[in-house]
Amino acid sequence: MSANPIRIGMVGGGQGGFIGAVHRHALRLDGQYQLVAGALSSDPERSKASGLELGLDESRCYANYEDMARMEAAREDGIEAVSIVTPNHLHVPVAMAFLKAGIHVICDKPLSSNFEMALALKEVLADSSAKFFLTHNYSAYPMIRQARALVASGALGDIRLVQVEYVQDWLSEDIESEGQKQAAWRTNPSLSGGGAIGDIGTHAYQLASFVSGLTTKRIAAQMSTFVPSRRVDDDVQVMLQFEGGAKGMLWASQVAPGNENSLKLRVYGSQGGLEWAQEDPNYLWFTALGQPKQLHTRGGAAATEAANAVTRIPGGHPEGYLEAFASLYSEAADVIRGNTAATLVPMLEDGLKGMAFIRACQQSSSADSAWVSLA
Amino acid sequence: MSANPIRIGMVGGGQGGFIGAVHRHALRLDGQYQLVAGALSSDPERSKASGLELGLDESRCYANYEDMARMEAAREDGIEAVSIVTPNHLHVPVAMAFLKAGIHVICDKPLSSNFEMALALKEVLADSSAKFFLTHNYSAYPMIRQARALVASGALGDIRLVQVEYVQDWLSEDIESEGQKQAAWRTNPSLSGGGAIGDIGTHAYQLASFVSGLTTKRIAAQMSTFVPSRRVDDDVQVMLQFEGGAKGMLWASQVAPGNENSLKLRVYGSQGGLEWAQEDPNYLWFTALGQPKQLHTRGGAAATEAANAVTRIPGGHPEGYLEAFASLYSEAADVIRGNTAATLVPMLEDGLKGMAFIRACQQSSSADSAWVSLA
Amino acid sequence: MSANPIRIGMVGGGQGGFIGAVHRHALRLDGQYQLVAGALSSDPERSKASGLELGLDESRCYANYEDMARMEAAREDGIEAVSIVTPNHLHVPVAMAFLKAGIHVICDKPLSSNFEMALALKEVLADSSAKFFLTHNYSAYPMIRQARALVASGALGDIRLVQVEYVQDWLSEDIESEGQKQAAWRTNPSLSGGGAIGDIGTHAYQLASFVSGLTTKRIAAQMSTFVPSRRVDDDVQVMLQFEGGAKGMLWASQVAPGNENSLKLRVYGSQGGLEWAQEDPNYLWFTALGQPKQLHTRGGAAATEAANAVTRIPGGHPEGYLEAFASLYSEAADVIRGNTAATLVPMLEDGLKGMAFIRACQQSSSADSAWVSLA
Amino acid sequence: MSANPIRIGMVGGGQGGFIGAVHRHALRLDGQYQLVAGALSSDPERSKASGLELGLDESRCYANYEDMARMEAAREDGIEAVSIVTPNHLHVPVAMAFLKAGIHVICDKPLSSNFEMALALKEVLADSSAKFFLTHNYSAYPMIRQARALVASGALGDIRLVQVEYVQDWLSEDIESEGQKQAAWRTNPSLSGGGAIGDIGTHAYQLASFVSGLTTKRIAAQMSTFVPSRRVDDDVQVMLQFEGGAKGMLWASQVAPGNENSLKLRVYGSQGGLEWAQEDPNYLWFTALGQPKQLHTRGGAAATEAANAVTRIPGGHPEGYLEAFASLYSEAADVIRGNTAATLVPMLEDGLKGMAFIRACQQSSSADSAWVSLA
Repeated sequence: MSANPIRIGMVGGGQGGFIGAVHRHALRLDGQYQLVAGALSSDPERSKASGLELGLDESRCYANYEDMARMEAAREDGIEAVSIVTPNHLHVPVAMAFLKAGIHVICDKPLSSNFEMALALKEVLADSSAKFFLTHNYSAYPMIRQARALVASGALGDIRLVQVEYVQDWLSEDIESEGQKQAAWRTNPSLSGGGAIGDIGTHAYQLASFVSGLTTKRIAAQMSTFVPSRRVDDDVQVMLQFEGGAKGMLWASQVAPGNENSLKLRVYGSQGGLEWAQEDPNYLWFTALGQPKQLHTRGGAAATEAANAVTRIPGGHPEGYLEAFASLYSEAADVIRGNTAATLVPMLEDGLKGMAFIRACQQSSSADSAWVSLA
Repeated sequence: MSANPIRIGMVGGGQGGFIGAVHRHALRLDGQYQLVAGALSSDPERSKASGLELGLDESRCYANYEDMARMEAAREDGIEAVSIVTPNHLHVPVAMAFLKAGIHVICDKPLSSNFEMALALKEVLADSSAKFFLTHNYSAYPMIRQARALVASGALGDIRLVQVEYVQDWLSEDIESEGQKQAAWRTNPSLSGGGAIGDIGTHAYQLASFVSGLTTKRIAAQMSTFVPSRRVDDDVQVMLQFEGGAKGMLWASQVAPGNENSLKLRVYGSQGGLEWAQEDPNYLWFTALGQPKQLHTRGGAAATEAANAVTRIPGGHPEGYLEAFASLYSEAADVIRGNTAATLVPMLEDGLKGMAFIRACQQSSSADSAWVSLA
Repeated sequence: MSANPIRIGMVGGGQGGFIGAVHRHALRLDGQYQLVAGALSSDPERSKASGLELGLDESRCYANYEDMARMEAAREDGIEAVSIVTPNHLHVPVAMAFLKAGIHVICDKPLSSNFEMALALKEVLADSSAKFFLTHNYSAYPMIRQARALVASGALGDIRLVQVEYVQDWLSEDIESEGQKQAAWRTNPSLSGGGAIGDIGTHAYQLASFVSGLTTKRIAAQMSTFVPSRRVDDDVQVMLQFEGGAKGMLWASQVAPGNENSLKLRVYGSQGGLEWAQEDPNYLWFTALGQPKQLHTRGGAAATEAANAVTRIPGGHPEGYLEAFASLYSEAADVIRGNTAATLVPMLEDGLKGMAFIRACQQSSSADSAWVSLA
Repeated sequence: MSANPIRIGMVGGGQGGFIGAVHRHALRLDGQYQLVAGALSSDPERSKASGLELGLDESRCYANYEDMARMEAAREDGIEAVSIVTPNHLHVPVAMAFLKAGIHVICDKPLSSNFEMALALKEVLADSSAKFFLTHNYSAYPMIRQARALVASGALGDIRLVQVEYVQDWLSEDIESEGQKQAAWRTNPSLSGGGAIGDIGTHAYQLASFVSGLTTKRIAAQMSTFVPSRRVDDDVQVMLQFEGGAKGMLWASQVAPGNENSLKLRVYGSQGGLEWAQEDPNYLWFTALGQPKQLHTRGGAAATEAANAVTRIPGGHPEGYLEAFASLYSEAADVIRGNTAATLVPMLEDGLKGMAFIRACQQSSSADSAWVSLA
């Protein structure tokens, strides 16, 4: 909790949304931010109603993000940062507006609905005094930090295999035609830029890279649309090759009944292996080759400094999704305040890698799963 | 998140504590409260330093709780509620001071270090315009609410068995002699009033009662102190008999290596059974007799209205300990604001039942485990 | 597999039984025995039909066990051992007949339906050249042997707590009145001598003793009959005190919906703890205090000599209930053949301890759960 | 148990082997076979010593399989069936010898070390009066039969996804150079015909086909050799396309530390999904879309006739690897005895499909993971 919380605004996230509420919980949990402004909906009336409900001052409930960027930049007590929680196609234009106004950006993933648009952000950021953060929230789970530290320490030896999957079932039927709001924009290619690949595939890809420390060399993908009438992919299967010789597989699906939000990562090296599952995030399995399997727990006996740095409460008192999300926000606050130069929070480069991954999968799948280089 | 957060203060919870920080995360998570005052330590300097660190105004960092109650009651913008997170022996005197000042109290458990002291609170509360809440936080987990709803619906038939346990290992050695602050006061009988029985046994007892809806008739207990030189119990084993004929067992231990915070509840009836474990709180196992076991999940297909009422995010995005704690705070806010008369938040009666349970276990254990009535 | 399998007969275990078939699988699995004779039913016709079905020679399908003992003892190629798989009340008389004939006995548990009858067996055994074995089969699981070895090695320090439970649901309703054969004799007190206490409680008790190495000092029990019209206990809850100061709890129930055959053992000491569940028998959890939890597996990296001695196939190829049962048979064969004097197979003393436990629980429960000494 | 066990012989499986002992346990468990002859080693002395140890008559301990086929065929009490448990390159020649002699063959997998050799068996079998069975033992687990029945019943709707993996760690290091016998022949390409692909990949492939009922259309594979100096693949990653539009992934690895014998299958359709893991074989997870997940257990409330047909003992009494293996043997006995024409035991066609899969993976991997048709 901070005596001087960072003043923050939000674009998107009005009534009825999902991820906007998540970001608000996340920024509030550690007391490092205070939400003071918003353009919460593209409908000005709805934007205002949503803002008032959240306790914003009426004068700071904006009709659109352009006004908000301009007017907040002009206020002495204007926002220092903004959260972007709109559909994907708006991420880049909104981010540009605030970066140009010198306001830090904390943006939901994927970076954009379109690779070229994403690239354009690079230049704008270079010219800005502000920072850009991307909320690949899963990388802030304590046991993911533990996993990354174990790999980096050499405890697994040379990494040979990286197996990652992100599996859901909520799009097993055509709910987008029935007015389900979350499904509607996510399956609209002009708003999302892709289906499972962008919504969850990029999370899986980022997590695998984050923990393994490996650079992807090339990929071969088969993307499918199982639900008739759907306009985007709902299942993605990828073979991976990394620099240095490691291999792997990535599977992202939104049509696998019995899976709620099953993101799982396994990494194997010449000397050991580890396994983690997002739905049980306080546990990490670690095996040193030839030794019995160990259960590492958040806050537990084997927890490293890296894990403890994002741990709030003792072992056995489970932390969850919101806590990991909040850790990203708090770490971004450290950077915004200039307390640290180094951070594990994903930034623009990570976003661009995610966009390159999406493009490569789409290209490979169109070319009958031919290998596509990511160099 | 509220446009008009409740102004709240805190007694106890200064630097170095555990549960104070938990309460602060909990009150902040849903945006229903704003922390504005504190007597965070019995050491005035430390109280002030702790308060400033949390962003409190210096004038509202009090040297003691008596001043705080008096002065906050006198302010127009004074606190409407107070969180009490001191060692057990102070719960009642602090609560009395604020209740007499018409300020709502949200108090950590157990209610007191002493049964008679606890009873005295009843009268004071009766004369106050304010409410009293007790943070048996585990009862606010969504899957505990689900369990309670299933039992109440008759899905288990007549309840026959209630098996509950709360097992930890952090006191397996004499860490209280090595200056571990959390251990020190918890193993000091004059500050805590008991060991495992009060610290975790009352949680287990409250949870069993909350879910089963049963009234305990009598208990037989054996309490042990396994760590030499320890001054309180560190293991408690109890046989339970309930009104109506159900039976059960309760085990609370702080000396069982391999257990971090393993609170588990199982309830069995003539038509079904259920099982829940706090360390994996998003799951509830339910079996209808003669049917395959079902996995109910927070936010999942079988989640009832009772569970969804304390659920923030979709299934598969795990919520944890802080979220359950925050739900209690938010539900207390609903009562404080007069939005509802009925609530599932534990109140004074629950606290008194916990104190009666502690006393009965101590009496039974002293009488070679003879049955002691709780009527 | 042996070039000279031991010739064995069977009493009980005719068509429609459960445990007889288990014993036959068990004696066959390792090829140490050959079944050549039987009095498989008290109904001579059924005994013969059952025997022929199993490939026995007609002349060795006996009408009753007395004839079988006499005539087999008289044959040059007569049986060397007999398996007793009748209801409990016949265990002792049958065992006596064969022991007197110099034929080794492998008897199902509990030892008898009656404590005094069981005691009488002691004398008969003392006068016999033959051995007596009791099939507390759970004690032959590799990971139970591992657990026992870990305790004996001191890896857990001084044992403080032994928590054991054996929970089923198959008697949640009055199926004995509906002609379920297994239920019928088990709930007939004159055939079984008790309900859950003898059928599963003695297994739990033996397992706890076997692994912990502790001697029980006294117990306090509450026994219940939840199903109306049932004539025996279907739930047993016991507090335990061991010589040397350890404590524990035992729970045996046959009315807990959602439990098939859930026998679980947990042992905690000053330096570590372990946990095992029969339904997942190839795993053993071990925690050294202050270290991460380890998963020991049958055939795995941490498996000790004691575990490997009863392991047939590599780790990850699960062995189950029949294999553990077969290990007891094979170990008994070693003793019968004179290959070893020492054995871990339960023998008469274990059976008498089980009978003493049953009697003590019944006495305690009748005396309002007063402590009863087992000295 | 049978009154007239089938007389069986064994080729391979002498002292020091693994799979020979497994087959012997399997054929003995249900009492349907009697082992009476063997050519247990290519070393005549060792063959004899091994045979005597197993109780074979000296005259039936053969120096080589050719003699054994000829002489057993000539005996009136000669073997009716033979188990082949040699390294892969001998499967076909040995099978041919016995099939030509009119003796039924039960052969370990994969069918051969070489596709063309395998094909040649087809003709020989066509001319023989005897049957050929292939021990893809995993397909006989009760919960695999349950899974297959659920898919066939339409409970999952149209199958969309089949994800299968078979992961081990025992070849993470170059143990073949250290004289580990099991590793030595498996990593010798002229004896095995391939590494992980044949040893475990074909098991995974067969299981996926068996449960899903789908026909594979084409595959794209990347095969790797991670351990330097190894001469065969030790990791195989495959993308699958099935007739009718389903997709899938297959992963087989022997270099993933922390995995003993982790064969897992997941199948998802438009209306439901299921998950199974070989190391916990008595459980099957089934989810009907929009319903809570169910845990189906062997012998449990949801067990179908298909599962019960290969179940020996009640739920909660775990059956394992040997039991599933034994079920295949017992089902083969039914066919051998002419009791049934239909069987689920894999036969030659399944073996040929496995060989085609191996060849396709090797071709694809050599062609930079290009798709290879299996039509």
